[in-house]
Amino acid sequence: MELQVENTMAAALGFELLELGEASARGRFPVEDRVRQPFGIVHGGAYAAMAETIVSAATHLAVMGNGELAMGQSNHTSFLRPVSAGFVHAEARVRHRGRTSWVWEVDFADDQGRLCALTRVTMAVRPAPPQSSTPST
Amino acid sequence: MELQVENTMAAALGFELLELGEASARGRFPVEDRVRQPFGIVHGGAYAAMAETIVSAATHLAVMGNGELAMGQSNHTSFLRPVSAGFVHAEARVRHRGRTSWVWEVDFADDQGRLCALTRVTMAVRPAPPQSSTPST
Amino acid sequence: MELQVENTMAAALGFELLELGEASARGRFPVEDRVRQPFGIVHGGAYAAMAETIVSAATHLAVMGNGELAMGQSNHTSFLRPVSAGFVHAEARVRHRGRTSWVWEVDFADDQGRLCALTRVTMAVRPAPPQSSTPST
Amino acid sequence: MELQVENTMAAALGFELLELGEASARGRFPVEDRVRQPFGIVHGGAYAAMAETIVSAATHLAVMGNGELAMGQSNHTSFLRPVSAGFVHAEARVRHRGRTSWVWEVDFADDQGRLCALTRVTMAVRPAPPQSSTPST
Repeated sequence: MELQVENTMAAALGFELLELGEASARGRFPVEDRVRQPFGIVHGGAYAAMAETIVSAATHLAVMGNGELAMGQSNHTSFLRPVSAGFVHAEARVRHRGRTSWVWEVDFADDQGRLCALTRVTMAVRPAPPQSSTPST
Repeated sequence: MELQVENTMAAALGFELLELGEASARGRFPVEDRVRQPFGIVHGGAYAAMAETIVSAATHLAVMGNGELAMGQSNHTSFLRPVSAGFVHAEARVRHRGRTSWVWEVDFADDQGRLCALTRVTMAVRPAPPQSSTPST
Repeated sequence: MELQVENTMAAALGFELLELGEASARGRFPVEDRVRQPFGIVHGGAYAAMAETIVSAATHLAVMGNGELAMGQSNHTSFLRPVSAGFVHAEARVRHRGRTSWVWEVDFADDQGRLCALTRVTMAVRPAPPQSSTPST
Repeated sequence: MELQVENTMAAALGFELLELGEASARGRFPVEDRVRQPFGIVHGGAYAAMAETIVSAATHLAVMGNGELAMGQSNHTSFLRPVSAGFVHAEARVRHRGRTSWVWEVDFADDQGRLCALTRVTMAVRPAPPQSSTPST
């Protein structure tokens, strides 16, 4: 099953989704101007967005077969070390798979493997609306 | 004093910075594909990125005259209501201005004024490195 | 309707619950050794515990009439200013009342009205198990 | 070097500090009324307080030899599974040791080893005031 990512924020920022499992997920993005803030380092929002992207996609793929959908509820990112070049690598692992919420932790590293940021993401899991796989308001 | 935002993530996502004061800040962005996730609603990372953008810029402008710089330390965003069209409006207010950290809270609303997301941002404030206004690693 | 608080953590720490409404809640505690850390200032966990106490109680009282119960899901507290004497005053206001989750923000002040800590609490709201008003695992 | 914990919140709640290293820390507490909320399960504030206790103590012991002190800046706890009996076991590991802030993650488990809560704690590290090892306002 493919997630449509063309014409989305993930595509606009150059995010690459490398693994979307139910227990772990991985992605990366190259450090280009579109993910930089004015001082030339990676924008804090890029880490938050990447974490949200891979965790949402992985959770959604895991629960959709049960007639459920997953929506982001909370994203808490701590910024530890600035990155100005190369790639940013994201590794997510699931910490909790409850009936109504999943919790993931995501580590971000630079090309030298140094920890750059941490994110905790909480996903709400809910029954999908009938005859649709898309969330309504 | 102008912040250079061309060729940054804020520009890539269509963010508009409307006010960058030392006690409050405002911005907005139109809901276009570049801030959407695959289901057509605003990507959670867009809220986090907008909060980080206006709060970082506002704090930086406030402290740079003292020979200090501001860097994002933590960003915690809660997603309350999906938005699929119109603008997303961000209003930030400072809650704490300490010697070494500032804390802001940001409310996001849709065009009808309904609360869509909340962010708390913690900025670290540090002495700027000599002969430079940009942060080093 | 009274919540039973004897023999609970709130009682052990000297918490006073002053208002438990569906839109706002208030409490306070005196600064005594049982809420101090080794340096004599209020323990960070005391703020988190007070926020959790008043928000959980207020949400629970609001939803139990609908056959629902409320359980804490997330508590994020930022510590802004140490307090070593007097009372700590907590004021909570609800920011979101969704079908499945409520989000509150809590401000803490000292006797001089200075902001000392901030908490965001997310409560999960779920159908109560049949023939019981207590949460099961 | 011993930390004085008599007459503190940690003592009032029955917290046991088992290890206070610079890379990891451990503690536990028995599930008694003084850490319960009205429904008989462990109060969310107890997890937050335990995390704050062991991480603050471990960081402080690690930096005090450098003439520095550590103060809690942020505590974000997610509640995953209710516990009503036995012990709650906390294991903390440091994720970042910067010059001005340390970041720790804490896992909580019940006696069966099931994950019950997660905390991320950010500690601010600052020069100690002259002729004193205690933080001033």
